[in-house]
Amino acid sequence: MSADACVFCNPSGETVVWSDARCRVLHVTDAGFVGFCRVVWNEHVTEFSDLDEADRNHVMKVVVAVERSLRSLLSPHKMNVASLGNQTPHLHWHVIPRYRDDSRYPDPIWAAPRREPAARALPGDFAAKLRNAIASAVA
Amino acid sequence: MSADACVFCNPSGETVVWSDARCRVLHVTDAGFVGFCRVVWNEHVTEFSDLDEADRNHVMKVVVAVERSLRSLLSPHKMNVASLGNQTPHLHWHVIPRYRDDSRYPDPIWAAPRREPAARALPGDFAAKLRNAIASAVA
Repeated sequence: MSADACVFCNPSGETVVWSDARCRVLHVTDAGFVGFCRVVWNEHVTEFSDLDEADRNHVMKVVVAVERSLRSLLSPHKMNVASLGNQTPHLHWHVIPRYRDDSRYPDPIWAAPRREPAARALPGDFAAKLRNAIASAVA
Repeated sequence: MSADACVFCNPSGETVVWSDARCRVLHVTDAGFVGFCRVVWNEHVTEFSDLDEADRNHVMKVVVAVERSLRSLLSPHKMNVASLGNQTPHLHWHVIPRYRDDSRYPDPIWAAPRREPAARALPGDFAAKLRNAIASAVA
């Protein structure tokens, strides 16, 4: 896939929660997986191992900031983190709070559903709280 | 889950390719996903974000060493990396070479199969070559 055809190089309708010069954090508004975020590397790079050590440590620092912020704000039962990119080969990390009563638990979110997910609401001002928590953790 | 009941605290039948004091690399012998490896943190820790920065950078250095070694040895179409742990909440990273003709591509390996996977053999002395490549990369 060329950068021209890449949805992360040509974003449309992204909800950017936090960003710096190298990467950005998106809130994925998925009613079934509340709090789902993505950390997108701004440059069009395919694999995590295409980054040098300083950039890898930076993006993982942001991933961990998102993970810790989501744990603090949402108290999930487990966190899932994944960099797949088979459909969109532009480096991004999924950071997903998981709950025992979500549709796939304990399977990965990409497995077949096991149940109707429990309704779950985000705290008020979730995006602002998440942005502040990430900014504090990355600083 | 207590450490007593944890398969990574009480391993049985693991194929350890490489290890150091903090973590170990397992070769998962899965005929459908040839070259599949796991990087297991030795201590019973649940989440990636439970580690401090030095330990996180170390485990990701090993993950990247595995990813680069697998790319070099197997030339997959894509690499997938994930830390889920819903079933076994002891920190481990899946590092999975993906091919266009594997059973799920381009879906994650946990999705429903799309096709019978193409037969694929590992190079001779795969484990020894992988061990050497990881050792060189981590050194």
